Amino acid sequence: MAIGRESVENLIKIAKPKWKTSISQVSPNQITTRGFLQEDLIENMSFSEMVYLLLKGEMPKKNQSKMLQSVLVSLCDHGVTPPSTQVARLMASTGSSMSSCVAGGLLSFGKHHAGALKLSMKILQDALKGVEIDGTDLESDDQVQRAAHLVVEQHQSKGEKIPGFGHRFHQQDPRPPKLIDMAIKYNCFGIHTELALKIQEILFETKGIRINIDGANAGILSDLGFGWELGTGIFMIGRIPALVAHVNEEKVRETPFRKLFEIEEIYYDGPESKKSDDILMND
Amino acid sequence: MAIGRESVENLIKIAKPKWKTSISQVSPNQITTRGFLQEDLIENMSFSEMVYLLLKGEMPKKNQSKMLQSVLVSLCDHGVTPPSTQVARLMASTGSSMSSCVAGGLLSFGKHHAGALKLSMKILQDALKGVEIDGTDLESDDQVQRAAHLVVEQHQSKGEKIPGFGHRFHQQDPRPPKLIDMAIKYNCFGIHTELALKIQEILFETKGIRINIDGANAGILSDLGFGWELGTGIFMIGRIPALVAHVNEEKVRETPFRKLFEIEEIYYDGPESKKSDDILMND
Amino acid sequence: MAIGRESVENLIKIAKPKWKTSISQVSPNQITTRGFLQEDLIENMSFSEMVYLLLKGEMPKKNQSKMLQSVLVSLCDHGVTPPSTQVARLMASTGSSMSSCVAGGLLSFGKHHAGALKLSMKILQDALKGVEIDGTDLESDDQVQRAAHLVVEQHQSKGEKIPGFGHRFHQQDPRPPKLIDMAIKYNCFGIHTELALKIQEILFETKGIRINIDGANAGILSDLGFGWELGTGIFMIGRIPALVAHVNEEKVRETPFRKLFEIEEIYYDGPESKKSDDILMND
Amino acid sequence: MAIGRESVENLIKIAKPKWKTSISQVSPNQITTRGFLQEDLIENMSFSEMVYLLLKGEMPKKNQSKMLQSVLVSLCDHGVTPPSTQVARLMASTGSSMSSCVAGGLLSFGKHHAGALKLSMKILQDALKGVEIDGTDLESDDQVQRAAHLVVEQHQSKGEKIPGFGHRFHQQDPRPPKLIDMAIKYNCFGIHTELALKIQEILFETKGIRINIDGANAGILSDLGFGWELGTGIFMIGRIPALVAHVNEEKVRETPFRKLFEIEEIYYDGPESKKSDDILMND
Repeated sequence: MAIGRESVENLIKIAKPKWKTSISQVSPNQITTRGFLQEDLIENMSFSEMVYLLLKGEMPKKNQSKMLQSVLVSLCDHGVTPPSTQVARLMASTGSSMSSCVAGGLLSFGKHHAGALKLSMKILQDALKGVEIDGTDLESDDQVQRAAHLVVEQHQSKGEKIPGFGHRFHQQDPRPPKLIDMAIKYNCFGIHTELALKIQEILFETKGIRINIDGANAGILSDLGFGWELGTGIFMIGRIPALVAHVNEEKVRETPFRKLFEIEEIYYDGPESKKSDDILMND
Repeated sequence: MAIGRESVENLIKIAKPKWKTSISQVSPNQITTRGFLQEDLIENMSFSEMVYLLLKGEMPKKNQSKMLQSVLVSLCDHGVTPPSTQVARLMASTGSSMSSCVAGGLLSFGKHHAGALKLSMKILQDALKGVEIDGTDLESDDQVQRAAHLVVEQHQSKGEKIPGFGHRFHQQDPRPPKLIDMAIKYNCFGIHTELALKIQEILFETKGIRINIDGANAGILSDLGFGWELGTGIFMIGRIPALVAHVNEEKVRETPFRKLFEIEEIYYDGPESKKSDDILMND
Repeated sequence: MAIGRESVENLIKIAKPKWKTSISQVSPNQITTRGFLQEDLIENMSFSEMVYLLLKGEMPKKNQSKMLQSVLVSLCDHGVTPPSTQVARLMASTGSSMSSCVAGGLLSFGKHHAGALKLSMKILQDALKGVEIDGTDLESDDQVQRAAHLVVEQHQSKGEKIPGFGHRFHQQDPRPPKLIDMAIKYNCFGIHTELALKIQEILFETKGIRINIDGANAGILSDLGFGWELGTGIFMIGRIPALVAHVNEEKVRETPFRKLFEIEEIYYDGPESKKSDDILMND
Repeated sequence: MAIGRESVENLIKIAKPKWKTSISQVSPNQITTRGFLQEDLIENMSFSEMVYLLLKGEMPKKNQSKMLQSVLVSLCDHGVTPPSTQVARLMASTGSSMSSCVAGGLLSFGKHHAGALKLSMKILQDALKGVEIDGTDLESDDQVQRAAHLVVEQHQSKGEKIPGFGHRFHQQDPRPPKLIDMAIKYNCFGIHTELALKIQEILFETKGIRINIDGANAGILSDLGFGWELGTGIFMIGRIPALVAHVNEEKVRETPFRKLFEIEEIYYDGPESKKSDDILMND
């Protein structure tokens, strides 16, 4: 008995799927994300709930999504001071498309910029590996204290700054205290945020350095259960509306080809001009 | 009386600012966005309100931010079917960073993909230029009807599809009807959405084609007062959490170097292999 | 008689190839590009010949590859004045990877920057569509003359500059005259370059404007038979070594987080600071 | 006596240059790169010489530029098998611009792909730090032999593959033997290439694994004096013409929106569809 070609193909497709995903299922006239019909999500979900659902695969409790909302809003903008914003606007001034400019902004998140959130999350999570998360007794408090000292010592012995602490513009970044307030209000304050604050305590006493926005968000996101690998991803989600706004402002209000400096402001320190003969001798 | 060098520099700075922005103001220990202290925004704003504030420069009314929220959630994900998601995951499988993969996803929003929202907004906005937006009388209805016919004729005469209508997977995309429901519920249904529905009416009668998610969102965003230049920007804001989720899933669950096909599945139709002498004759 | 599963799969693969290409053929232990064994190419080809072979699919004559070589070298660098170079270096200063920085540079090739080569090629090619390429008689000369006037008039009537003419730094760009010399020397001077020079003649008489590097290369590349769609691609091939050099210089010689301006040089012209209550009223 | 404002500004500019570079100097009507007038470079330089001059800051000897030429040509293309090429073509099929597609290709050079050249250069350079480069005596040979064993042991003890050895398609990559031949011919064979070959010897005896293109180029580029930090940059210079060719082929010959697989080939393993009530309970 012959098997139709189509059936054989279908058998093979099922046996050897090309892609596998647990995020969304698409079939004709129906789309579900993490198991929920998208029309239900459209009707009922806030954007922060949607972000939580997409990244963690489960529906947040109300306090968790409110906490994530505060984190995302806190990342919204820092004017034209960040290199990523300058890059996006500079690209916009050459006439590049919105997508290209925003992509350029994202690609400027190097280890010295925006990378701090991810790095700070990693430090806090590594330092508390194995520590009982629900522990509220004295022993847990002690462990966090020891972890704080260890983190500070490890960085100071190598002469390194700790990502998440200190800010080049703000002696006292106004965002971390408010974020900590919200973590308490939403009952999302856990041992990672506690660790971040204890590190601040040591740094402030010895060097007058305070926690910055990355350090506060690192603690809170870790307490919400986000792995550090998602740090830069969450930063991007929070910052991208500002990049769109800045690119648009550049395109609408400025003349093309932004001049960052005059040609006289460039200092050339290469070799002096040579005569043509110097090349010809090369042949 | 001598003027200190520092004062001269400051005078020059004020006289010739390097950048100008109306989005955020950063001064030591204080950051405001569109005039609001960021600590107040962190405490009180939903992410959709923040997006509205950043992009439009004014605080939304509650119904407007709820409407924008539904639009952003509706853009969240379409599984691994979009080329942008495939690109982001394929890049993740080579070990590229989260930022690079998401940037790659954004750069895949070409005119045949994701561009539809912007194009559809432009068509609706151009078609209604000059039409009284608040008009609810018969005359306005008539103008919208005429605009719908004009849009359809202009595209059909050139044999072009109208962006925002028809879907390669869904005969009946489940998202547009829900989005329209929300527009009515939130009192955000205006003439652009009306125009989109009238175009659908014509296309459905003649070709069985329905409005898709881009067409519905194009109408709604236009009624909310967003210019079409922001179309792709808004699409990116809505889609980026899914790109982050997909890149993370690829990195966590899949082995590196995803193989999309076997080497035997590549069909080579270039010139046959040549002998070395063919090059040497070139010299 | 049963057919093995493997045979069925192979039949399907051959019947439905996933990709088709005429550029390179890869089989175990053998790689050919445009029909040539790569080991032969490695031994015998200059990089410019390789670029020509890849883009046009045929081996260049010696004079053609020498001409393309001059074009590629002419694109090499313009210091830190181009926005693309500034973007790449600014990104490097945040610690982004070499690939990200160079990609950022490429994404800065908007319509006001680097786009000029492609646009200029399109103008020249469109203007000479249908003109006998080999024609050296008076009639052809006449056609080119008429085309030059038409191009100038079309742009001036719309108040637009012609891409490929005029330079913001150089009254007399030193590269175009040398490129034209090489085109004559290598016998690659054709009607497109002639057209570019005739346009220059008109612009110089009326406005003192000379041809720039994009205009000269646009003529020469068109005479070499490259379609304008490849303009930006060829620009990228020529410019990318400089981007790599600049990114490397930034990483090796500069401290991270380049400061393009002081915070006082930012001029904020958005709304004044508001009180918290203004948000709360929103709810 | 008053000082004019202009003079003050000029003083400040000279005192506080915004950018510093040793690569190119741009002044009105004159451009030099590494000290050479660009019109002289246009007339006399091959592209490989230009790459060498830009990256190393000095004019190569003829044999060095010929060697670099072979390296760059060897990187030219590997058909549609690399993820970077698939990404660039997939993006092209959505209608993205040439720059975006090529940038996407570059961003796909993750640590599992293209990163191998840089990593392999680092391994060879680290292993020979302190070894007398010009040494041709027995002692030097001995040191290289010991270094080879050390490299193999260090990787095998961690169960890691050595970048630059083994290929997923080719048992015997045809390019490395030819590259080694050229290194001997051009008198560019040094201790790094020797080390690479000695590592191959050990791997071939024990596991039947041969050197691949990255390993051969890593040795040769190191012997030419290029630091490993430039590895990915050089790879990009060599590969970019192929990316341009592939993007162009996709745009010219294929229909938009390439379908890599059927919707049935996607395997969904997330949660089952839920009822609307499950969301509402969330509130």
